[in-house]
Amino acid sequence: MKTVCIIGTGLIGGSMALDLRKGEFAARIIGVEQHAAHAADALACGLVDAVLPLEEALSEASLTILAIPVNAALQLLPRILDLLTPGAVVLDVGSTKAQLCAAVAHHPKRAQYVAAHPIAGTENSGPRAALAGLFQGKTNIICEQERSSQQALAEALALMEVLGMRTLYMRAEEHDKHLAYVSHLSHISSFVLSLTVLDIEKEEENIFALAGSGFASTARLAKSSPAMWGPIFEQNTAFLSLALQEYITHLQLFQQRLQQGNTPALLQMMEEANRIRPILEGKSRTPQPAL
Amino acid sequence: MKTVCIIGTGLIGGSMALDLRKGEFAARIIGVEQHAAHAADALACGLVDAVLPLEEALSEASLTILAIPVNAALQLLPRILDLLTPGAVVLDVGSTKAQLCAAVAHHPKRAQYVAAHPIAGTENSGPRAALAGLFQGKTNIICEQERSSQQALAEALALMEVLGMRTLYMRAEEHDKHLAYVSHLSHISSFVLSLTVLDIEKEEENIFALAGSGFASTARLAKSSPAMWGPIFEQNTAFLSLALQEYITHLQLFQQRLQQGNTPALLQMMEEANRIRPILEGKSRTPQPAL
Repeated sequence: MKTVCIIGTGLIGGSMALDLRKGEFAARIIGVEQHAAHAADALACGLVDAVLPLEEALSEASLTILAIPVNAALQLLPRILDLLTPGAVVLDVGSTKAQLCAAVAHHPKRAQYVAAHPIAGTENSGPRAALAGLFQGKTNIICEQERSSQQALAEALALMEVLGMRTLYMRAEEHDKHLAYVSHLSHISSFVLSLTVLDIEKEEENIFALAGSGFASTARLAKSSPAMWGPIFEQNTAFLSLALQEYITHLQLFQQRLQQGNTPALLQMMEEANRIRPILEGKSRTPQPAL
Repeated sequence: MKTVCIIGTGLIGGSMALDLRKGEFAARIIGVEQHAAHAADALACGLVDAVLPLEEALSEASLTILAIPVNAALQLLPRILDLLTPGAVVLDVGSTKAQLCAAVAHHPKRAQYVAAHPIAGTENSGPRAALAGLFQGKTNIICEQERSSQQALAEALALMEVLGMRTLYMRAEEHDKHLAYVSHLSHISSFVLSLTVLDIEKEEENIFALAGSGFASTARLAKSSPAMWGPIFEQNTAFLSLALQEYITHLQLFQQRLQQGNTPALLQMMEEANRIRPILEGKSRTPQPAL
């Protein structure tokens, strides 16, 4: 069993702590946490055994998980590599990968780093939002695996296995492009849906009374942390801007057909949209029976 | 206990049948269902005791629930009123109210009709999607209550009480305007998000692998029935078109600030959007403690 350091004891770092302890992967978990209130919560919830300053934590740990907003990770990762002891491994778990990989591309200890993105989360944040089993059955992406040492990769994969994740490999730019569409865009659509409704429905009482479970589901991500998502949008602006433009163009087409009273065309768009059901439910992946 | 006729034994009609039987409101439930497969399912699931032709069903029932797509309801409601026996009551449960109320405004039996909208549902449809308790704790809207007889209103309210719903009253246009924002718009945002991602991510495998629970939640409504939603959009075009324009305008503002790298402005928009959390969770309704 290892001594694991978790930098950032929020939803993601905290949920990992729960599973790593339960899975007997970590004998000791050290938190590094700049917010005093989060540090106190992480200790009180038993997520970490101690909260220590960065240098001290890194000197003890053989595996470090960097789980802070992506702008802060961009600042901190080079310094962590500077401090990393021989044989120790650091992985990050952020939602953008290209800028971070570029920032440490020429670092002499690059091979001790694994660029990961375990795709899981909720709209909540902070140590008290940590959930056991959050990662179970979900997908982890590793980028630039050829730039990590075999040992570092093996340790990262062992960790993901304890969390119950399967790992796929992608180039960092490819990761950021796909995530723009499949995750970041849906956060924007939800944030802006919430904003629009709040702007128009001045009587909040109406929103509460009239919102069905449908609106609640569509607007759920609008509860997400700006401090986490702002830096993701900033680092993924190029792909996200393309994704958002496509979304706006599709909405304008829907709007045009709505105003023309062209219901058959609207029905066709909705039927096409319905194709998301088997994909989300994984049915499109069912192999065809052999003939 | 009553004999209740349910026209349309899908998600809404079928879920009502389950609760009305369990709540001992209905002694006998007669289905009217034009799709043979749905009729068979409704009988097999025990939602209804019999499926009969419209005239026969109306001659037996003292209370009729019209739970079919809103375009079909617009066609059928005048005929139902023509056939309605003295003292019998009909209520509809559709998601648009203005056109339907207008269609029967001058019907001699208008007072036997209650224009209702129990706000509940899922992305699934058909008798096998029926869920007990679907309406529990949710809101029902009644429009033009002054045009329904006291007896008809009392019967509708008794039914909604068995379902566990609280009833609010609104003008039909006001209902359609609010619903455009708080329900219909979120369906469009979800249908079009799904379309956009399907158009761009040609590799469906990627969507399955990379979509987190966030995308699944935001795109959930994209699984909804086009046959149900097309007519709603058609009947609510004027308000919905305004709502959609507002949404597009807000997305364009977000896009502009994204491209400008104006993260502080994006953070401000997200913080504003976060205000939906206490509203959706009903916390903004908590009365202030008395001084």
